[in-house]
Amino acid sequence: MERIYLDNNATTRLAPEVLEAMLPFLTDEFGNPSSLHALGRGPARALSAARRAVQELVGAEVESEILFTSGGTEADTTAIRSALAADPARREIVASTVEHAAVLALCEQLERHEGVTVHRIPVDGDGRLDIDAYRAALSPRVALVTLMWANNETGTVFPVEGLAELAHREGALFHTDAVQAAGKVPVALRGTDIDMLSISAHKFHGPKGVGALWLRKGVPFQPLIRGGKQERGRRAGTENIPGIVGLGRAAELAQSVDHGGMRLLRDRLEQGILARIPKVRVLGDPLDRLPNTSCLAFELAEGEAILMLLDRAGICVSSGAACASGAMEPSHVIRAMKVPFTAAHGAIRFSLSRGTTAAEIDRVLEALPPIVAQLRALSPFTAEEVR
Amino acid sequence: MERIYLDNNATTRLAPEVLEAMLPFLTDEFGNPSSLHALGRGPARALSAARRAVQELVGAEVESEILFTSGGTEADTTAIRSALAADPARREIVASTVEHAAVLALCEQLERHEGVTVHRIPVDGDGRLDIDAYRAALSPRVALVTLMWANNETGTVFPVEGLAELAHREGALFHTDAVQAAGKVPVALRGTDIDMLSISAHKFHGPKGVGALWLRKGVPFQPLIRGGKQERGRRAGTENIPGIVGLGRAAELAQSVDHGGMRLLRDRLEQGILARIPKVRVLGDPLDRLPNTSCLAFELAEGEAILMLLDRAGICVSSGAACASGAMEPSHVIRAMKVPFTAAHGAIRFSLSRGTTAAEIDRVLEALPPIVAQLRALSPFTAEEVR
Ligand SMILES: Cc1ncc(COP(=O)(O)O)c(C=O)c1O
Ligand SMILES: Cc1ncc(COP(=O)(O)O)c(C=O)c1O
Repeated sequence: MERIYLDNNATTRLAPEVLEAMLPFLTDEFGNPSSLHALGRGPARALSAARRAVQELVGAEVESEILFTSGGTEADTTAIRSALAADPARREIVASTVEHAAVLALCEQLERHEGVTVHRIPVDGDGRLDIDAYRAALSPRVALVTLMWANNETGTVFPVEGLAELAHREGALFHTDAVQAAGKVPVALRGTDIDMLSISAHKFHGPKGVGALWLRKGVPFQPLIRGGKQERGRRAGTENIPGIVGLGRAAELAQSVDHGGMRLLRDRLEQGILARIPKVRVLGDPLDRLPNTSCLAFELAEGEAILMLLDRAGICVSSGAACASGAMEPSHVIRAMKVPFTAAHGAIRFSLSRGTTAAEIDRVLEALPPIVAQLRALSPFTAEEVR
Repeated sequence: MERIYLDNNATTRLAPEVLEAMLPFLTDEFGNPSSLHALGRGPARALSAARRAVQELVGAEVESEILFTSGGTEADTTAIRSALAADPARREIVASTVEHAAVLALCEQLERHEGVTVHRIPVDGDGRLDIDAYRAALSPRVALVTLMWANNETGTVFPVEGLAELAHREGALFHTDAVQAAGKVPVALRGTDIDMLSISAHKFHGPKGVGALWLRKGVPFQPLIRGGKQERGRRAGTENIPGIVGLGRAAELAQSVDHGGMRLLRDRLEQGILARIPKVRVLGDPLDRLPNTSCLAFELAEGEAILMLLDRAGICVSSGAACASGAMEPSHVIRAMKVPFTAAHGAIRFSLSRGTTAAEIDRVLEALPPIVAQLRALSPFTAEEVR
């Protein structure tokens, strides 16, 4: 039985073309790009080619706006700490309640121990940002707004371009965590009010342990990691050349993904489940969602139990974000959306990749209904109607 | 003509066994170790196996003392910032003048902008730490001593165990940058006064972009990068599983390296050069040096010019540290050792690997004398005697 992997928001399979691009740098082209001898040259060239590929992916103005990091979390941390250092008079941050832990955990640290005020903007039942609350939080005291482009659990897309414009009216910098958006929806930074953007290669068929921060030219910057002169002194440490090359190749490949096809398959899955299983809610913005993500709450069933039984059937999904999934509590995103208790515990995230096939979707549509029925039959809360 | 690579302190070739260990995790075993389904399990197991391998390499007491990072620079940064956060009453740091930029650039930032006093302990002409100055700098105001185990340019080994003991007498934490030591000299942390230690995989035939911080159990800790619960909440971000697996395998391989053989070859190179070329100084501690490193200062010749001509002859070396080698100034290490002007500009670092052969050394011994003679003939300073 071939395994079906629908957990692509947690991480993706490395594209074969990406591995192929990386291999020379994992073998003969092992040099340090800072070296002045022959073995430094190939890696140095590959480094700037990768930078251009990422520039293309996000539609950045100049290559030097791209700074490679060890992943999305480091990019987020760098952006937030840098923005706070830019103007000591501004000691407030605006974020949403549904940001990734990479943002929220840092915000908590800043609030508790570093004298920063954090405004956490709520979302509605569909995961959409409360724009009035957002406007109210903005002021000349705000150093930075950090709002994700797309949510990792529900796929909800925030209107970041407009949100950035509002932030700029108050002179605040605007950062967006585009870790889930890059490679899944078009990103075109030129001409927007966005100042900083984070991406992570392993979310779009690139390698783990490498990401990038886009930093608009002219935006003040403070490095998180100082040392050698790599990345124009903005991120020290010997460059992870194979990883960066992989990120570059993954960025190129992401440009030609058929998002429409992915969306059709996602809709087939979602509609199929809704047609076959009663009492299922779609979580997330019905109008503006990532084309690959479907987060469904199965009333009166435990998400973890569904996950386990699907796993036995060879189907890999997630219940909430991977990093939170050790715990049995509904994730912070689901709590923020005020999903009712009986459904909140039954959330499952299906996240497709460009490799997902219709046959796989159909196998899920076959496997899932008996699993949910079985679990509901065991539930102490089970109402007659959902049996 | 086969290229001869004697720049292994800049970076090393990935060992074939390391690539082999990584490949499954770059293909089918691509899962996120936090995932609860089948694809998370292999990576999760590999993660703890790699942790045990690194534990073995450094002789740590327990596996959980190892925390994976994106490399040596991040490990150094994490250690230093964490130690400073431990006790707000201690606002001083002790380092040496010959630390890597990863330490010195952060120290400069801390001193200039964050109210920290930095004591920079000088070295003598052989690169040995001035122990009297070190003792004098220690006090109950010192939060952290950070001294490298081995110097990247000269290979000089500091007596870190004794230095750590002195630091502990004043209640300071002790961190050592062992990026150049790990895999080249025995490291056995158990029973020492060392509290934290940094390593970087690509310096001992592991992959770039991954390293580790060893943190003695019980030592207070503050993460540099917060977010998900990875690494027991001490370093957030989806784990770079292929990189970490590579680090683990490289750590295993490093345990069986024949350092004696490496030292013999290094001595053959060094003695051979001294016998064939006049006016050459060996830089670094004659008694306690890494077995793979020979840093030689050729009087009245430009290091960069030697490097370039060796490169044309297919021999890769470095003039000073890779990260500093864009500039034509003698490195901070050579300046700290007060190497006389006429020699300071002619420093070349030869750094061997366990793969270096006697035939390669002999080719260098043939190629080098005419190159140095040619350059000296052109030097405006050339004295009769060195022609
Ligand atoms: C002594 C020393 N410390 C730290 C580093 C930094 O390690 P990395 O470049 O892997 O971050 C290096 C190498 O560049 C080094 O030689
Ligand atoms: C929205 C979002 N931001 C940030 C991250 C962190 O990225 P990484 O794990 O690559 O550091 C993730 C994924 O884990 C994510 O989904």
